[in-house]
Amino acid sequence: MIYPEPIDDLINCLKKLPGIGEKNAERLALTIKDFKAEDIDKFCQALKDVKEKIEICPICGHLSAGDTCSICQDKTRDHNLICVTEDSKSVFSFEKAGSFHGVYHVLHGLISPADDIGPENINIASLVKRVETLENPELILALKSTVEGETTTLYIKKIFEKKKVAISRLSYGIPMGAEIDYLDIITLDKALADRKQISS
Amino acid sequence: MIYPEPIDDLINCLKKLPGIGEKNAERLALTIKDFKAEDIDKFCQALKDVKEKIEICPICGHLSAGDTCSICQDKTRDHNLICVTEDSKSVFSFEKAGSFHGVYHVLHGLISPADDIGPENINIASLVKRVETLENPELILALKSTVEGETTTLYIKKIFEKKKVAISRLSYGIPMGAEIDYLDIITLDKALADRKQISS
Repeated sequence: MIYPEPIDDLINCLKKLPGIGEKNAERLALTIKDFKAEDIDKFCQALKDVKEKIEICPICGHLSAGDTCSICQDKTRDHNLICVTEDSKSVFSFEKAGSFHGVYHVLHGLISPADDIGPENINIASLVKRVETLENPELILALKSTVEGETTTLYIKKIFEKKKVAISRLSYGIPMGAEIDYLDIITLDKALADRKQISS
Repeated sequence: MIYPEPIDDLINCLKKLPGIGEKNAERLALTIKDFKAEDIDKFCQALKDVKEKIEICPICGHLSAGDTCSICQDKTRDHNLICVTEDSKSVFSFEKAGSFHGVYHVLHGLISPADDIGPENINIASLVKRVETLENPELILALKSTVEGETTTLYIKKIFEKKKVAISRLSYGIPMGAEIDYLDIITLDKALADRKQISS
């Protein structure tokens, strides 16, 4: 064995994390060895808490530290405006951007016939029920622009077709600061089709 | 607060690790949330063990899980042949390469007048004592080719000048597989000066 056993054990734990290989795990393990004892205790507590205390919000499907999540509990938000996302990571991104004042609905996946994931495998049924309880519901579909994302967008659009629900999707186009000549042709095509009039 | 508190706590712990930023920490925390409870327990135990059980070998200065390290305890190794390294990471690298059959001496740093690090601040005194107890000592200085590395190499060479100690350093040259035209000029210069005759 090349490493002393405690270091070897820690490296094996760290290697289970995404994007962390042997060399990186070695570097992290040697850094952790020099942590203060209280930092190690904090780290252990945080590992246990994230496993034991994080639940799924029964209303929106987002991660929550209690019963319903802090966003669903927030009465200052517009609960008729629901942003539908693939996962909780997207919710964190919108919250960091900070300009959205509605609430969310996390699907925990996208429809993907190739992977045998149908509408019944993701969190859509609860979205339908939730929308039915609202007076002037509005949905913003914030799903990625892949085949799976667009399939899910179309499916949700179809469900609510005959109900009085305003539905929009995020705009497609060129990302801020991108060089036009480095963009892929599909993005460029979409940006052209979705062009916005700025003067009549 | 954007994240639920337990996730936020874990992200803050992970961000203390080298090379892990906010986005990466978020990704790791969400992966850890889905770990099995037993994997979390193993992770915590490994964190505590690496802090509590890892010591410095009193003979060579390498990391050890007990009193003296497993390399110093290994009687099949040549204890007269000492490879001097800057840190334990170098020892792990040599052990992975697997061809070195001697033992090590870890300096825990290099002489660096600019940073106020003199010979007395690194693990050299114990090297001198150790060498004195050996019959046919041989030192291999495996230090990096920076100003600090070469200063330390020269210093150690000078200490043992009048004693009967064979001393060598690692060869400088082109790394395996490297394109000659992409090498820096100093490496190229060294490789030229240290060229090896292959036919008379």
